Amino acid sequence: MTEQPMESWSEAPPAGRPDSPLARLMDRLLAATGNPPVTLVLWNGVEVTSPGRLPVARIRINDRAALFSLLLDHQFQFGELYSAGRLQIEGDLVACLEALYRANPGSGGWLDRMGIRRRRLNTLSGSRENIHRHYNLGNDFYRLWLDQRMLYTCAYFPDGSETLEAAQIAKMEHVCRKLWLKPGERVVEAGCGWGGLAMHMARHYGVTVKAYNISQEQLAYARQAAQQEGLQDRVEFIEDDYRNIRGEFDAFVSVGMLEHVGPENYPALGKIIARCLKPEGRGLIHTIGRNQPRPMHVWIEKRIFPGACPPSLRQMMEIFEPSGFSVLDVENLRRHYAKTLEHWLARFDAAESTIAGLYGENFVRAWRLYLAGSTAAFTTGDLQLFQVTFAPGQSNDIPWNRQYLYRDAPLGNL
Amino acid sequence: MTEQPMESWSEAPPAGRPDSPLARLMDRLLAATGNPPVTLVLWNGVEVTSPGRLPVARIRINDRAALFSLLLDHQFQFGELYSAGRLQIEGDLVACLEALYRANPGSGGWLDRMGIRRRRLNTLSGSRENIHRHYNLGNDFYRLWLDQRMLYTCAYFPDGSETLEAAQIAKMEHVCRKLWLKPGERVVEAGCGWGGLAMHMARHYGVTVKAYNISQEQLAYARQAAQQEGLQDRVEFIEDDYRNIRGEFDAFVSVGMLEHVGPENYPALGKIIARCLKPEGRGLIHTIGRNQPRPMHVWIEKRIFPGACPPSLRQMMEIFEPSGFSVLDVENLRRHYAKTLEHWLARFDAAESTIAGLYGENFVRAWRLYLAGSTAAFTTGDLQLFQVTFAPGQSNDIPWNRQYLYRDAPLGNL
Repeated sequence: MTEQPMESWSEAPPAGRPDSPLARLMDRLLAATGNPPVTLVLWNGVEVTSPGRLPVARIRINDRAALFSLLLDHQFQFGELYSAGRLQIEGDLVACLEALYRANPGSGGWLDRMGIRRRRLNTLSGSRENIHRHYNLGNDFYRLWLDQRMLYTCAYFPDGSETLEAAQIAKMEHVCRKLWLKPGERVVEAGCGWGGLAMHMARHYGVTVKAYNISQEQLAYARQAAQQEGLQDRVEFIEDDYRNIRGEFDAFVSVGMLEHVGPENYPALGKIIARCLKPEGRGLIHTIGRNQPRPMHVWIEKRIFPGACPPSLRQMMEIFEPSGFSVLDVENLRRHYAKTLEHWLARFDAAESTIAGLYGENFVRAWRLYLAGSTAAFTTGDLQLFQVTFAPGQSNDIPWNRQYLYRDAPLGNL
Repeated sequence: MTEQPMESWSEAPPAGRPDSPLARLMDRLLAATGNPPVTLVLWNGVEVTSPGRLPVARIRINDRAALFSLLLDHQFQFGELYSAGRLQIEGDLVACLEALYRANPGSGGWLDRMGIRRRRLNTLSGSRENIHRHYNLGNDFYRLWLDQRMLYTCAYFPDGSETLEAAQIAKMEHVCRKLWLKPGERVVEAGCGWGGLAMHMARHYGVTVKAYNISQEQLAYARQAAQQEGLQDRVEFIEDDYRNIRGEFDAFVSVGMLEHVGPENYPALGKIIARCLKPEGRGLIHTIGRNQPRPMHVWIEKRIFPGACPPSLRQMMEIFEPSGFSVLDVENLRRHYAKTLEHWLARFDAAESTIAGLYGENFVRAWRLYLAGSTAAFTTGDLQLFQVTFAPGQSNDIPWNRQYLYRDAPLGNL
């Protein structure tokens, strides 16, 4: 640790700790974030470590204005400064972010802001704008680091060691099995991404699918893929909001859309599902969630995912309870999302120069922080991944046990 | 259908329907309960069927005061009159009660009362009195119709056709597997009944158990059983309220107690669990529940289960969210409770003369109605059975998948 000359003492610092106005500001910043096990290093070489902690990484703050920004609003400014290259992390990025989360569980420390703040509301037009900002970045961008089927949601690693490609197929299988789809049934999918699950259901389960999405880029890709695979008669991709779903279906499925719906719309979503599901129908919602209700990380919501809000299970029940659904199964796949993100981050890093050429260095840093920070949020329990299976309250079409989910290798025949 | 002489007409009844002041009262009673597919038959032979319905049973009302009681408060009086023998059901009792539930889903029709009413509160002394009234009826009584291990909670029928004895063992196995118990671990059980699960865990998983209960009758039985099986050093039965649990444990388990806790006590229960669970600990709560919050059936709460209240999942989350637990798994075993109750009812009926000799005919009828009505509540979706597995929010000691619950036959080595 670099020893600094002692300056004016207001209180005696612990033996061996540097003291100066700047060092005291760094102490204050560390204390305000739960004294995570990190070392802060300033542009002038002054460095301070949280007292008594063995640092897992060094956070380099490159200019005076950056330090003051962090003191004013570290939750938001950490991401801003990192993206701009004015704050750097030396050491393992994910490990550093995990340390920040763990030091301040429930608030995310550097990475989150407590309390209520204004989220961009998901009205019909608001949703369209919010979704456009994230998903219409360009299919070419996502193709660089997602799996070949372009699944941009948590994969399922039955033994924790599968490849990303295999784990995304296993996820689709897991979802289809949870819905116990039967040939000839009609399925509606709300928020279908690039169409991977819709095509999987049609191809392997003999069902017809109406798949809704409001991202034009994704839909163009999905329609072309369905055409190429000869599935265009069994999968219909519809450019419309989930609120406009019409028809009667045996199964409702939604993977990775609820994050964008907003709790204020949950009872309405429940009514839509109740209206479109047959009495013996089934439904599954797969979503990022939380152990306690809390807004999305402020920087991610502003820079990456406008309008997003991962619900707690209690909040999710506002979908099911008013409409009298029976919740049949909830599975928390949090560790699987951490693993998925590790794969994405590795592929993203491998494509770094291409992405930098397309979008610039600041974009690369922002997305790296988003992917690494999300990994840390799932490994530290700050975020959850819930798969909730449900059915109309009076239906008795419920399997006796869940062994059918595990009967044979999920990848056997695919 | 018996044709009755036509009396004064206010409105023309449907062709072929009897009309009289009494018949019109019966029409009103049927309409008020959603026109279930039943025939009402009076003491004088007048009978009325819900319009356009094919009756599944006949409900015989034996005196004029009984009819008026039903008109005033059918939800409560149905059970009172049935127990007293003043109302009889001809046909299959469970099928009749299912029809009543289905005619009025969400309210239970004849069998329930909407809205808020005063439940006997589960204060420390209130709980003791409430539990005493139900569970201290006498071990001899429960021995007549429960399985040999005296498990008075939902069994688990992996393929729907097991015997009750096998299904209760399978339930204990399912619970133990969900907790992934390891030899040498310490388990606390809140509400241990006659001690069956505590002894199963100690015997088959090599753990030590502290098991809490406030029913003296049950504890006396459990202590004797543990002594007989040589488990007294590994299972400690403690006569105390769950609120007085002390110590630090690897696992918390509670099967069939939450119904007696009351939602007003859920955050406090969560704090107790958080206090006693190690950072890498796990917990499981097994409880009767509902799709929507609603008080217990009024007659059952008054006559059978004072203080009971089955929660909705949203209500249950008040245990987990304030203390920051991760919910890992929820399984709805509603059909298993219907099957369990079918077994209990058959055994109860087989022991009818013994039970009548001990407690009288009114008691026999009341308990038959309770067992049959509960069966109907589970088959119609009025009641649910939730098993919720959870862990402290920062623990990553979570299996990758749930196949370990199904790996080999649950009864293989027992």
